[in-house]
Amino acid sequence: MRYLITFSYDGSNFNGYQKQNNVRTIQEEIEKTLKTITNEDISISASGRTDAKVHAYNQKAHFDYNGNIKKDNLKKALNSLLPDDIYIKNIEEVNNDFHARFNVVKKEYIYKINTGLYNPLERNYVYQYNKTLNINKMIECSKVFIGKHNFKSFTKADDFDKDYVRYIFNIEITKQEDIVIIKFLGSGFLRYMVRNIVGALIEASENKKTKEDLVNILLSEDRTKAGITAHPEGLYLNNVFYK
Amino acid sequence: MRYLITFSYDGSNFNGYQKQNNVRTIQEEIEKTLKTITNEDISISASGRTDAKVHAYNQKAHFDYNGNIKKDNLKKALNSLLPDDIYIKNIEEVNNDFHARFNVVKKEYIYKINTGLYNPLERNYVYQYNKTLNINKMIECSKVFIGKHNFKSFTKADDFDKDYVRYIFNIEITKQEDIVIIKFLGSGFLRYMVRNIVGALIEASENKKTKEDLVNILLSEDRTKAGITAHPEGLYLNNVFYK
Repeated sequence: MRYLITFSYDGSNFNGYQKQNNVRTIQEEIEKTLKTITNEDISISASGRTDAKVHAYNQKAHFDYNGNIKKDNLKKALNSLLPDDIYIKNIEEVNNDFHARFNVVKKEYIYKINTGLYNPLERNYVYQYNKTLNINKMIECSKVFIGKHNFKSFTKADDFDKDYVRYIFNIEITKQEDIVIIKFLGSGFLRYMVRNIVGALIEASENKKTKEDLVNILLSEDRTKAGITAHPEGLYLNNVFYK
Repeated sequence: MRYLITFSYDGSNFNGYQKQNNVRTIQEEIEKTLKTITNEDISISASGRTDAKVHAYNQKAHFDYNGNIKKDNLKKALNSLLPDDIYIKNIEEVNNDFHARFNVVKKEYIYKINTGLYNPLERNYVYQYNKTLNINKMIECSKVFIGKHNFKSFTKADDFDKDYVRYIFNIEITKQEDIVIIKFLGSGFLRYMVRNIVGALIEASENKKTKEDLVNILLSEDRTKAGITAHPEGLYLNNVFYK
């Protein structure tokens, strides 16, 4: 039986989603807890990884389990045993050929920037830029990235991903009091892609880059051309969509 | 020269405001940093203490300093040396007879309760009640506390405060999505008073106490009668007002 879980986490005290030796990761906490509950070695496959300090409102992962524990009880057991910075929001049965990563059709990320005074209460949850941003310019420049593009210039320089083409359906930039919220909806995102695009939009707001510069960087398909990578703590995986 | 500072802090990793041996406190961090900057032993006097895990958007404190460092530079130095969970928002000169605690005329506290799903991202910032609340009943019962009362029943059982009379000017209860926000404006608040009143309002919502019960508990002036004390992490000192 294959199950799909939807879960949220506070990335502040994790070294990212993906299991690695000797560091605390979300994948390992969930797999360890599944082992405690079922006494089986269960691997979970997520929609994708998130980096250290990046958060998720709705991450998704699938796993196989054929034991007797019913899904509602499994959810209860997971939530009572998991650390308090991870929460399983939903468990559902899916077909055996469902794959949490390969079946993704859309993903949504949110990036939050504080343009007001430094706020110690949100230091792990909103990028503390603490200066004014030119929202209109950011909106104008965000249009450069919408559509189907090769995003090689906006990924991590040592990424081995072979296909750099992704489709960004929409970038929405709004402001709630001092917080600028940038919402990205796309077919998928390369490593650091959202944070590098946010970095480019901030540089555009600061008049360090023009809209034309951004077009040229995108067209160059050159991973050394991207500018600053926005801090991880402002980034949230907001949703993952399947057919 | 006497200065008044306005500062915010994330109470999550503090053992409360007030200096104590061998634990991390907000007062000690600020005094230690003032010592580093001025090379003088400067004591700060706050508007009042906050307990462990309680936050502040605008706490106030005064201190005396007669050295050469100008207030704007003092503010910059403090913010560059203080840990990232405290932030000095403002420094102003005040009269030598000004006292950050004795001159208070009003204080405002906010309490936040999540009535939706458990949210790991707000576990240190919003009380995770995770059930529905009867807002109308809470508003109705909050009226019991408005006005001038002896709040002995709603303070800490071992508090040595001699004058238990306080004036609550207003209690405002609103809801933003799943978060219930209770705002208290009063002449001052006894230790645990806000959290005990919030606890009483939650018990009223759960039909464990009627409005009459709350009136009787208040009139009893008996510190053993109060019910649950709401969790500290939902509480914020929002503002302190002087004449």
